[in-house]
Amino acid sequence: MKKILVIHGPNLDLLGKREPAIYGKVTLKEINSALTKLARKRKAALKIFQSNHEGEIVDLIGKSKGKIQGLLINPAAYTHTSVAIRDAIAACGIIAIEVHLSNIYSREEFRQKSLISPVAKGVIMGFGMKSYLLGLEALLDLIDAK
Amino acid sequence: MKKILVIHGPNLDLLGKREPAIYGKVTLKEINSALTKLARKRKAALKIFQSNHEGEIVDLIGKSKGKIQGLLINPAAYTHTSVAIRDAIAACGIIAIEVHLSNIYSREEFRQKSLISPVAKGVIMGFGMKSYLLGLEALLDLIDAK
Amino acid sequence: MKKILVIHGPNLDLLGKREPAIYGKVTLKEINSALTKLARKRKAALKIFQSNHEGEIVDLIGKSKGKIQGLLINPAAYTHTSVAIRDAIAACGIIAIEVHLSNIYSREEFRQKSLISPVAKGVIMGFGMKSYLLGLEALLDLIDAK
Amino acid sequence: MKKILVIHGPNLDLLGKREPAIYGKVTLKEINSALTKLARKRKAALKIFQSNHEGEIVDLIGKSKGKIQGLLINPAAYTHTSVAIRDAIAACGIIAIEVHLSNIYSREEFRQKSLISPVAKGVIMGFGMKSYLLGLEALLDLIDAK
Amino acid sequence: MKKILVIHGPNLDLLGKREPAIYGKVTLKEINSALTKLARKRKAALKIFQSNHEGEIVDLIGKSKGKIQGLLINPAAYTHTSVAIRDAIAACGIIAIEVHLSNIYSREEFRQKSLISPVAKGVIMGFGMKSYLLGLEALLDLIDAK
Amino acid sequence: MKKILVIHGPNLDLLGKREPAIYGKVTLKEINSALTKLARKRKAALKIFQSNHEGEIVDLIGKSKGKIQGLLINPAAYTHTSVAIRDAIAACGIIAIEVHLSNIYSREEFRQKSLISPVAKGVIMGFGMKSYLLGLEALLDLIDAK
Amino acid sequence: MKKILVIHGPNLDLLGKREPAIYGKVTLKEINSALTKLARKRKAALKIFQSNHEGEIVDLIGKSKGKIQGLLINPAAYTHTSVAIRDAIAACGIIAIEVHLSNIYSREEFRQKSLISPVAKGVIMGFGMKSYLLGLEALLDLIDAK
Amino acid sequence: MKKILVIHGPNLDLLGKREPAIYGKVTLKEINSALTKLARKRKAALKIFQSNHEGEIVDLIGKSKGKIQGLLINPAAYTHTSVAIRDAIAACGIIAIEVHLSNIYSREEFRQKSLISPVAKGVIMGFGMKSYLLGLEALLDLIDAK
Amino acid sequence: MKKILVIHGPNLDLLGKREPAIYGKVTLKEINSALTKLARKRKAALKIFQSNHEGEIVDLIGKSKGKIQGLLINPAAYTHTSVAIRDAIAACGIIAIEVHLSNIYSREEFRQKSLISPVAKGVIMGFGMKSYLLGLEALLDLIDAK
Amino acid sequence: MKKILVIHGPNLDLLGKREPAIYGKVTLKEINSALTKLARKRKAALKIFQSNHEGEIVDLIGKSKGKIQGLLINPAAYTHTSVAIRDAIAACGIIAIEVHLSNIYSREEFRQKSLISPVAKGVIMGFGMKSYLLGLEALLDLIDAK
Amino acid sequence: MKKILVIHGPNLDLLGKREPAIYGKVTLKEINSALTKLARKRKAALKIFQSNHEGEIVDLIGKSKGKIQGLLINPAAYTHTSVAIRDAIAACGIIAIEVHLSNIYSREEFRQKSLISPVAKGVIMGFGMKSYLLGLEALLDLIDAK
Amino acid sequence: MKKILVIHGPNLDLLGKREPAIYGKVTLKEINSALTKLARKRKAALKIFQSNHEGEIVDLIGKSKGKIQGLLINPAAYTHTSVAIRDAIAACGIIAIEVHLSNIYSREEFRQKSLISPVAKGVIMGFGMKSYLLGLEALLDLIDAK
Repeated sequence: MKKILVIHGPNLDLLGKREPAIYGKVTLKEINSALTKLARKRKAALKIFQSNHEGEIVDLIGKSKGKIQGLLINPAAYTHTSVAIRDAIAACGIIAIEVHLSNIYSREEFRQKSLISPVAKGVIMGFGMKSYLLGLEALLDLIDAK
Repeated sequence: MKKILVIHGPNLDLLGKREPAIYGKVTLKEINSALTKLARKRKAALKIFQSNHEGEIVDLIGKSKGKIQGLLINPAAYTHTSVAIRDAIAACGIIAIEVHLSNIYSREEFRQKSLISPVAKGVIMGFGMKSYLLGLEALLDLIDAK
Repeated sequence: MKKILVIHGPNLDLLGKREPAIYGKVTLKEINSALTKLARKRKAALKIFQSNHEGEIVDLIGKSKGKIQGLLINPAAYTHTSVAIRDAIAACGIIAIEVHLSNIYSREEFRQKSLISPVAKGVIMGFGMKSYLLGLEALLDLIDAK
Repeated sequence: MKKILVIHGPNLDLLGKREPAIYGKVTLKEINSALTKLARKRKAALKIFQSNHEGEIVDLIGKSKGKIQGLLINPAAYTHTSVAIRDAIAACGIIAIEVHLSNIYSREEFRQKSLISPVAKGVIMGFGMKSYLLGLEALLDLIDAK
Repeated sequence: MKKILVIHGPNLDLLGKREPAIYGKVTLKEINSALTKLARKRKAALKIFQSNHEGEIVDLIGKSKGKIQGLLINPAAYTHTSVAIRDAIAACGIIAIEVHLSNIYSREEFRQKSLISPVAKGVIMGFGMKSYLLGLEALLDLIDAK
Repeated sequence: MKKILVIHGPNLDLLGKREPAIYGKVTLKEINSALTKLARKRKAALKIFQSNHEGEIVDLIGKSKGKIQGLLINPAAYTHTSVAIRDAIAACGIIAIEVHLSNIYSREEFRQKSLISPVAKGVIMGFGMKSYLLGLEALLDLIDAK
Repeated sequence: MKKILVIHGPNLDLLGKREPAIYGKVTLKEINSALTKLARKRKAALKIFQSNHEGEIVDLIGKSKGKIQGLLINPAAYTHTSVAIRDAIAACGIIAIEVHLSNIYSREEFRQKSLISPVAKGVIMGFGMKSYLLGLEALLDLIDAK
Repeated sequence: MKKILVIHGPNLDLLGKREPAIYGKVTLKEINSALTKLARKRKAALKIFQSNHEGEIVDLIGKSKGKIQGLLINPAAYTHTSVAIRDAIAACGIIAIEVHLSNIYSREEFRQKSLISPVAKGVIMGFGMKSYLLGLEALLDLIDAK
Repeated sequence: MKKILVIHGPNLDLLGKREPAIYGKVTLKEINSALTKLARKRKAALKIFQSNHEGEIVDLIGKSKGKIQGLLINPAAYTHTSVAIRDAIAACGIIAIEVHLSNIYSREEFRQKSLISPVAKGVIMGFGMKSYLLGLEALLDLIDAK
Repeated sequence: MKKILVIHGPNLDLLGKREPAIYGKVTLKEINSALTKLARKRKAALKIFQSNHEGEIVDLIGKSKGKIQGLLINPAAYTHTSVAIRDAIAACGIIAIEVHLSNIYSREEFRQKSLISPVAKGVIMGFGMKSYLLGLEALLDLIDAK
Repeated sequence: MKKILVIHGPNLDLLGKREPAIYGKVTLKEINSALTKLARKRKAALKIFQSNHEGEIVDLIGKSKGKIQGLLINPAAYTHTSVAIRDAIAACGIIAIEVHLSNIYSREEFRQKSLISPVAKGVIMGFGMKSYLLGLEALLDLIDAK
Repeated sequence: MKKILVIHGPNLDLLGKREPAIYGKVTLKEINSALTKLARKRKAALKIFQSNHEGEIVDLIGKSKGKIQGLLINPAAYTHTSVAIRDAIAACGIIAIEVHLSNIYSREEFRQKSLISPVAKGVIMGFGMKSYLLGLEALLDLIDAK
């Protein structure tokens, strides 16, 4: 059975309550349910975490080295500022998919630079909850294809 | 029946033969077959074009205004240089999804700026042929959700 | 009789239907009628083209060398990206007037640089259809003044 | 009867004597006569000022708030350095047209940025005295069209 | 009774001992006493935290959503690097006041950019402990004025 | 009795009438009354000026050298363009507090650089009229503390 | 017999008539004759095209993949703006030589960046018609040396 | 008899009292005496002005057009911000010498750009009062040499 | 006995397993053993920590203020992004040596800026494990030399 | 008989031994032989120098003023840093051809700026030894054509 | 007797013959004679050198440490590129005056940055040979004033 | 026996006498003695040079190709400006260690970029004479480890 680590970055625990014009009304719980359902269908087991702490996210990735086949990550605010998460993904050496609820390229200038993208296999953004589901599909296909 | 315009930008006719280390071995014909098959399953009709001409792509988008429900586009080299295609998409006012075979953010500096992304609903890149299929799925879901 | 070449750049064929908040409700046909009417009053003959193709615009300018007295051009999206049109105008060696429907300096950053302005005699922008009419007036006055 | 404020920025009092290769041989007096004549024909009253003082220009605009229907301004050197005049125009809330004798985009780099353009309705440049006359025409048309 | 969250960013626990030439001799305890005293006078209850952890500050703001009327924050070093705290404040949707002991604009270049200011209602800096007191006054006035 | 110079920069005479969405409905007269009332309570005498002229503001500061204990200044548009006012404050050698009605860091890019801040003791912005009152309080406290 | 594709970019059809101070008096026909003569001497066959269309140039390069041994190209204005032609050359995988009539590094700033050079084997500029002849010599030598 | 205009820019009236570490203890009166004495020796008449107003300096230069043979100017703070004074000097068409008391290139970054230097014949800085005297010597020599 | 704090930044716990081409095969445990052995020889006691948390590193430095004589730190990814660690070192006021396993100046552009170097006494990089040992030697010599 | 100065810049004495992947296996001696042979055929005399000293190259150029008809130079590393060599060529006033073994535009960013190109008549790069031969051909043709 | 080192930078040996439009017709010999004459009058001894070698200029300055009272230098091309000469002057610790024949601020962009000015006491430029004489006068006055 | 080339860059001959606040009181002779002593202990022979000439340093490195096992270099001012020395080290293909007496990252902006670091194996700075000794230790260890 494929093992996938899912990481939600900072402030995503507020989803549904947070600026719905940008992020939609879906809650993190609903996203996690949808992901779990899809994973079950695809014979994959998910380990899902949300953290506001850059260091905790680095810990999670580092500790899962050798125990997972893929990483699905929405780095949220850390997309633009964290070299540490980027290094953790590179050090981890597994397939990582970066997802975003909103299209970060139609937002503020400083959000249009991702430190994570260069170490991700693929990037999906702008589809709300669907970004996660497409990301998980793609990730599992990539693992199957190996 | 939903009508979708699919546009392949410059040099994508060479796919399979062109720098396979970056773009893979899949040909444009194979991508189009896979897209058509998926469209049929989703009750959608595709109009597919490949063009090396910026103006032709602008023509295609402009002429399809009011006749299609969505646009799936891989702008290729024009991603980084075409304000005209950007304006055509904005003028068109339909849902556009931008896809790329490779992860453009792990390539040369000048490829890391997309003029198209800000007018796209969502962006998917790095999954080879799968970028197109995920993009079409997402596009059809968005149309259904309206 | 003075001969004037009028060129409308990419996406201007969509005028009236395209983002009316920025570009107004006037159609290209109405602009052309108004220009033709003014030209007749001023004893000038107009050759009017709209093209989405950078190369076609370069062709048009190059071929009219020696056959026209002035150029009235709204380069639209190519304003910001086309060295080829700039070179064609310089090579042509006739008087060119650059017009824009909207005030490009109150829009996005990337629209605030014109590659065409340095080779234009004058620039008029922000007056909708009236930009064209003022431009034609000014162009004809310049030709008369020679 | 429409009331229009006309402002000539710094060094324009030297017109005719100042670098004729760039600014032409027409004097400010001649420009003012031509403007006045055109205004009369269009049933408009002009209040015309020339000032080398940024503060004086700000005063003039501020004091005319509610007393004029439009502003025709050649900010000259203050085009590139005055946030105060920009703020005065925005605070004034009337229609402003920016004009220049020369095409500032074919001159030095530092002249290719206008702080005034973003708060102007339209911009006209490169036609010498004619820039003013076209500007006044356009301004009066805009007022009539309201 | 109004409830206010007070957050002291990284290294502020060292206050009084840390570079007194820049930050003064007042300790964090003294600042907290003064704030508490002022709050009591103004019928407000304070919840005060100091943290060196970006994630902890994000946690604190996220958890207080809906439970406080205002936020008084000295983001210290995170002023210049934290998109996560910025997003937390925006997601929180309450009134935030940013304060600094020193005038950050008379210090190093990299300290002259605040990622937090754009989501703060107001900013006060340069008055040492007094920055906090003025900030709390202003915050309470703003809440009262609603 | 402490003597304080209060300077209102360009366009602040239009307050109340000028873009109320940004600057509020309070008039300069009301601000001056509130300041005077507060000054009286704090045993301070105010000399209040509004000027649209950079040079006049430089004159005022230069002439008050040695005759005042503090300067409260809202440099408005000159915040971003005046080295002369900056030099006057530095030459003056008295305590200066910079205030702004709006939070300039949540506005246009070019407003996010203050030439004045590096020579001000402290900066307060975003609180409307209250910015002035907090500034005066802080200024008087600083003078008392000497 | 070696097969060489020769491409002349935009506005080169105007050669001889276009700004002779920069580009000289030689016509494109004369250049083509000289090239053909040299080719004959070197036992090579030339296919020569001039186009003002970026897309057409991309088409030409793409279609000649596998049918030619070398490309001699003067990309003219597209030198500075075309990622599509660059990608076509890279996709083509044959030896390309970039030539320019004038020395582009002694001209305007924006002409001093070539998007094509990084994918060209060699670059020759500044020798007028001779740039082409030297380029063809070098190209044929490179092919012979393989 | 040669006629020379001498202009002292903003804050120079405070000389002797203003930051003596940078500007020295000499007063403006002493500088003017020394200049007058030197002028007398060289058979030249000086018209000396100090102004804090950019507009006034522009007025002075404009009005002296045709009445003076040379300009000796210390633009002080306006060195870095005034296009209007630059334009006035260019419009004036007489020989201008720019002088500074301090070496502006060993000071803050923003002081290391002079808008005036490109229109000055020569520049002298860093010698305190002596900068003026050397400047006047050089100016008179230049006039004599014509 | 000298007390030294040793801090290993994010992802260094993965050493030996992480991208060995860049970071070598040595593990953190081996580095710590070597450091401890050297410390013993030099009569120094080490307190060694590894953390992926910026806040934790700030805590560690802050708490050791007054209890240690020197800091040996490999800030890893936080080298390029942490103002908080920089401020902690400055606030701490003890001698800090920055070390890196790899030569960060021969890597990606964004790794070529260290926020920590300006507050470090010295910097050593590129020698793998040896960077630490040289750093400790130098640190102890500096302490002895005081 | 035409006299030509040939200058090889720094490190070119190591050719053949130096990074053959970039610079090829040909030695400087072989290049010089080939150049001499070609010169003889073209009735030209060569003076050939290699120097690692910027000053020596400046000396050589300066001393040959009036004694040579042309300069063939590979400035190597000084291409990117030497204003002195540029000034020497300009001062010399003879025809200079700049050559490079490798295509400097497909190398590091800092090698993509040539200080020499703007004063060279033409530039040839990317052809290894052949760059020199083509350069000499072109140079002699230019001299003959005068 | 005062001892002064005079250094002429690269290409100044060509003076009189080199681009007279920029540098005038005076030769270096004439400048040296004029300087020597002035020195004699002022009871100073000059040691005059011209060198095209950056290293030689550094040698000269370093060796004269403690043996001269002042340095008069025209660094010519090295003005813009030599940190070594800058460091030599700073290391030397004597008074240095930088002179230029032409006004470097009215020339190319890259000539508008001087690496030497920040370590010079004063700068004089634009007066041809007179720049040197004014510089020597000023230098001797500064030495006398000590 | 290992052979090591030691190069001291410009102005280092003045050590001890040159700005002791930055560079300390140690002389170059003392550094060389200490290096020689350490080398003897490590069974290595040193060839030590100091030069103010960029070209001489390039010569030294080029000539020692194949005759030394390692290079210890303090490029001093040439750190920031010499592509030629960088190329010499790369061409040389031996292990190079870059050392600096001071921490260049806590000095002026322009000193914070090293052209040499990318071709150095390791970098050590900020430890005065000790930087050299640590560098030699590290260099010899690296050679032994091969």
